[in-house]
Amino acid sequence: MTDQDSDPPRLPADKLQTFIARAFAAAGVPAQDAAVIAELITEADLRGSDTHGVIRIPTYIKRIKAGGINPRPRVRIIAERPGTALVDGDNGMGHLAMRIAAMTAIEKAKKTGVAWVGVRMSNHAGPAALYTMMPLAHDMIGLYFAVGSNNHLPPWGGSEVLLGTNPIAVAIPALEEPPVVMDMAPTVAAYGKVRLKAARNEPMPVGWMIDREGKPLTDAKRADEGHLLPIGEYKGYALSLIIGLLAGMLNRAAFGRDVIDFNKKPEVVTNTGQAIMAVSIEAFSPVTEFKRAIDVAVRDIRNSPRLPGVERIWLPGEQSHAKLLERRSKGVPLPASLHKSLDDLARDLKIDPVM
Amino acid sequence: MTDQDSDPPRLPADKLQTFIARAFAAAGVPAQDAAVIAELITEADLRGSDTHGVIRIPTYIKRIKAGGINPRPRVRIIAERPGTALVDGDNGMGHLAMRIAAMTAIEKAKKTGVAWVGVRMSNHAGPAALYTMMPLAHDMIGLYFAVGSNNHLPPWGGSEVLLGTNPIAVAIPALEEPPVVMDMAPTVAAYGKVRLKAARNEPMPVGWMIDREGKPLTDAKRADEGHLLPIGEYKGYALSLIIGLLAGMLNRAAFGRDVIDFNKKPEVVTNTGQAIMAVSIEAFSPVTEFKRAIDVAVRDIRNSPRLPGVERIWLPGEQSHAKLLERRSKGVPLPASLHKSLDDLARDLKIDPVM
Repeated sequence: MTDQDSDPPRLPADKLQTFIARAFAAAGVPAQDAAVIAELITEADLRGSDTHGVIRIPTYIKRIKAGGINPRPRVRIIAERPGTALVDGDNGMGHLAMRIAAMTAIEKAKKTGVAWVGVRMSNHAGPAALYTMMPLAHDMIGLYFAVGSNNHLPPWGGSEVLLGTNPIAVAIPALEEPPVVMDMAPTVAAYGKVRLKAARNEPMPVGWMIDREGKPLTDAKRADEGHLLPIGEYKGYALSLIIGLLAGMLNRAAFGRDVIDFNKKPEVVTNTGQAIMAVSIEAFSPVTEFKRAIDVAVRDIRNSPRLPGVERIWLPGEQSHAKLLERRSKGVPLPASLHKSLDDLARDLKIDPVM
Repeated sequence: MTDQDSDPPRLPADKLQTFIARAFAAAGVPAQDAAVIAELITEADLRGSDTHGVIRIPTYIKRIKAGGINPRPRVRIIAERPGTALVDGDNGMGHLAMRIAAMTAIEKAKKTGVAWVGVRMSNHAGPAALYTMMPLAHDMIGLYFAVGSNNHLPPWGGSEVLLGTNPIAVAIPALEEPPVVMDMAPTVAAYGKVRLKAARNEPMPVGWMIDREGKPLTDAKRADEGHLLPIGEYKGYALSLIIGLLAGMLNRAAFGRDVIDFNKKPEVVTNTGQAIMAVSIEAFSPVTEFKRAIDVAVRDIRNSPRLPGVERIWLPGEQSHAKLLERRSKGVPLPASLHKSLDDLARDLKIDPVM
């Protein structure tokens, strides 16, 4: 949940990053791991993932303190084929497991052309785009699936939340244009948006949620009495289910009733599942030719005729890329409520505040 | 487009299959290829894919006769890595190229754990589920992406149909339950449904299409004046785009303005792109344990609490599986208009009619 102060103060990314590293180190995470986590979380904020970046660190650290996250995991590969691996995150921070999974997928795909690495015993790892984009620097395409950190979606026609806002993400590199990066949950609204409406005392639009009688639910404070709606009705349900089976069940990670609410049960191990793929472009097409063709496709779409009232056609990932450039130069917005929560955390951990 | 006669005559699957083989052979397709095509198309009809099965053969054969499909293709692998291949369909029937692609993916995944096979110079190949399900018999999961055979979707905010109803499909095997098979286009309605409404002189629901001013379009006869709407607004747009880049662009197959309308331009080569993946379950989890867990997940979902008025919660692919069992025993429905079109075709090709 973010405030949306019209113009909050800005914090240089390096300051944010050293604060995050300080916080995790104070919570018992080895310095090297804390540095990795801090870099990834900062990148999330730079890219505009305000609901999946630094705003989450009080929750992460609460879980570490409550025993729900292992601060000193030994992340390891427990099954392996030339093009696949299963990574056990040892219940550490999801960022650590997912980074190793992505690196493993990239190394394998250099030899086999494609690799699929599943992760079990992981935790919430921030925005999907972080990992999906890792293969880009190696002239590879990245694909990512994850089981959401709590269930907010029933099967289509049902009223029990057996499924999550399980994200699917794909990143494809261009030559001069920003990469095309899709990162979506199969629900109409993300749950973070519901929380934001509740915090602001604003009603939700019809179509975001229904109650257990199937009636539209627009009072965000009553969100616990209903559930999210999937995109495309039964289609979003199918997508969430399939992602949950691929990222959870296949890795013997939590699925369905076994999914633990990450926010509500800080002491319970989540066994979160994720999966990442790397696909070598060169295995199919000369790399530069492919990237140039992506540039053309991006420009064709951007410059195509618009509906009345539409100012601009965006490509998936383009707005995040614009934020990345802006925030790298001007810093990450630090709204008052976030600033306060980080100050509270600093006091609690007896570390220097963020600024 | 199907008629929906309340109770049309039934045709035994073997009769349908021999008719289809006869038709393709008469159109110049070698007997062995015609048999493969006939088996796949019949399977489509058995599974209830009435819009993607035998109803399409007059179009396929029209294309063969017009020079738009090569009746005697030499399907071959033109690039290869241990876990990947690029198949050139030589502009033959898509069924032939896709079958070889799926078999190649399965063989590769036996060694590498995962394989991704792209296809170029292919054509419409019938329903995605046909190929996505091929890995199941090898204790593998199948994933499939394809570029639709014509463009009906603009980018979000746009009015030029640069994108297609590009399907994404995934098949996951269970032990005793039917496999979980998702096969969806990222649009609210399939274009076949629009054609059906037009044929029946029925209005379309609001939400299926809009016109180029962005206003709801409900007159199906005016479908050419507008375009389909994506599921989840910008999300379905992103999904269609990504699928198009993975299944089309990566394989140097048609994408965007290069996509040829399969129905309207029978003489033009489409260069259709598809991609299939096979993922070995054993590379991640003991196979029987995994399949048993899928059974449990399927039953948990089916038996979970329902919204008022909902009779049954369906799993993706379950209705197709039920149709398969029913049609195997009772035959494939042959509505009058389909029967007539097959009789016309038989006369045209100078072959025995279907029955």
